[in-house]
Amino acid sequence: MKGVEGNVNAIDPDRLRQTIMTEDDFLEALFKRMPLPPGDLVIPPGDDCAGFRSADGGILLIAVDQVVEGRHFLDEGPFTASPRQVGRKLLARNLSDIAAMGGTPLYCLSSVALGSRHDTAWLDRFFDGMLELCRRWETHLIGGDLARGAERTVASLTIVGRAGERQVLRRSGARAGDGFWATGVFGRSFATAHHLDFEPRIEEGRWLAERGLSRAMIDVSDGLLIDAGRLCRASGVGLFLDPGTVPRRSGDTTLQEALTDGEDYELLFAVSKENEERLRRDWPFRGLPLTRLGEFRSAPSPGVFDLGGKPLDTEGARGWDHFSR
Amino acid sequence: MKGVEGNVNAIDPDRLRQTIMTEDDFLEALFKRMPLPPGDLVIPPGDDCAGFRSADGGILLIAVDQVVEGRHFLDEGPFTASPRQVGRKLLARNLSDIAAMGGTPLYCLSSVALGSRHDTAWLDRFFDGMLELCRRWETHLIGGDLARGAERTVASLTIVGRAGERQVLRRSGARAGDGFWATGVFGRSFATAHHLDFEPRIEEGRWLAERGLSRAMIDVSDGLLIDAGRLCRASGVGLFLDPGTVPRRSGDTTLQEALTDGEDYELLFAVSKENEERLRRDWPFRGLPLTRLGEFRSAPSPGVFDLGGKPLDTEGARGWDHFSR
Repeated sequence: MKGVEGNVNAIDPDRLRQTIMTEDDFLEALFKRMPLPPGDLVIPPGDDCAGFRSADGGILLIAVDQVVEGRHFLDEGPFTASPRQVGRKLLARNLSDIAAMGGTPLYCLSSVALGSRHDTAWLDRFFDGMLELCRRWETHLIGGDLARGAERTVASLTIVGRAGERQVLRRSGARAGDGFWATGVFGRSFATAHHLDFEPRIEEGRWLAERGLSRAMIDVSDGLLIDAGRLCRASGVGLFLDPGTVPRRSGDTTLQEALTDGEDYELLFAVSKENEERLRRDWPFRGLPLTRLGEFRSAPSPGVFDLGGKPLDTEGARGWDHFSR
Repeated sequence: MKGVEGNVNAIDPDRLRQTIMTEDDFLEALFKRMPLPPGDLVIPPGDDCAGFRSADGGILLIAVDQVVEGRHFLDEGPFTASPRQVGRKLLARNLSDIAAMGGTPLYCLSSVALGSRHDTAWLDRFFDGMLELCRRWETHLIGGDLARGAERTVASLTIVGRAGERQVLRRSGARAGDGFWATGVFGRSFATAHHLDFEPRIEEGRWLAERGLSRAMIDVSDGLLIDAGRLCRASGVGLFLDPGTVPRRSGDTTLQEALTDGEDYELLFAVSKENEERLRRDWPFRGLPLTRLGEFRSAPSPGVFDLGGKPLDTEGARGWDHFSR
């Protein structure tokens, strides 16, 4: 869930001054206002997916995510996304949340409020892109709601998936001494259209979960630093990151871009010392980089530090939270 | 799902000419483009909820619905809805879909794209209204996604519920000879703020389902005629409606308003001849009208007719489909 990308829009300084609360803060406070969750809610809100127990001993995973015209995709100028790319992206973002739990996607439902620039033909192509990816991952669209009257198009998708109870990977499992690993490369997601065309790491996430090679995982939606920081806070550990090891998308990608651009939709995960060699040896996904970026250690307060112990995920540096901006 | 109310907006004739496809038509065509659904999808899309088998023999119900500023709620003028009412309405619409299957709500997830007129304080009160109704129906909010950048606020909610496999009430079970029954009263939902303050008929739907007193059900979102027509088409029967029996919300409500205004969120259901007396006798919900409005019979084509056999749910008369308008 989470993950509101904003590279698309320039920061509006008025809006920035107006609002001080991040999406994480708002949602955390919101979920605390509910009474204690029922016993079968084994993964409460705050992870990539919530999860409740299915009677067969597995866990049903569920998450929601949305795209907003002008914010998650552009409909004018050189970076215009086709409707097909928009529909594909909406599903892919949600698939990435299932991937981050080590799960398998099953079903999805989507609501679309069409803006004034879009018509039924646009919507048809939007669903072309979504259904193509549905077929690829055997994920069935089983519900929808359509409306007009929005000024800008807003589309939301809820995904349902499944994971074995012992396999499911939460954000909270990282321990001091674990290695910090990542799939893929980072930065310049918007300029390269990666944010539209990325492949969700379903197979990789499931492979890690099934083999017990990882004990905490998250996907990168808002930026490597901000999402690594979430992993740290959920696990109560510090992460000592070696910035020199971060793989960049291209030769002209800066370290800052790699750390904070977001929308990479790669997996970040914790691997215990005794599993690191096996992970490196058995990794079957040729062509997809697998990199050790640092190590978790105990720290006075959870967060991301450079090798000298300087905090990296501070308010100014940690990347984009695009609800508060 | 379905159910895009539009009493709030005047009909825009340009938009009407522009678009010829109804929401039902669009979604029906869309779902047909998916490969055959997996075996555990026991209620495919097209009903009030989709449903898939849970390993304990029950069915997990799921549906999505949304509200759009200026379309499902107004933020200016004499009919302005408070943010609390908007949040409440969004959940209540979805609870009504669970009610229409005879189910029990369990969980919900909501995404909100905030429009330019709304801020974090508005959103807080929006969730006040939603959480209040969550508590009333022991429904847990377990996921959320927040974004800014929409011009008009759009909020979507996905609901998950449960029903026993033998109890679940679909649209397709009505048979010739069954009576056609309704809870509550109809019409003038917008003018009376009923569309904001209604009570979803969860208890009533569950009572009917558990006692096996109904064999097909739907809730009224788009209008009595249009939703009764959906029940007819799903069941392959005609409905012969006695317009004189339709209970109206107030003395000044016209028959046309009662038949077509929509957003009544009452239950329409089919009752076999042998159960009608028992239903009338055992109905425990004092204060909530229970009315027999007509009878299902075989007909050359499914649809709603008056007692003389004149079709009532024709394009012009059947009410509001607010995707196409």
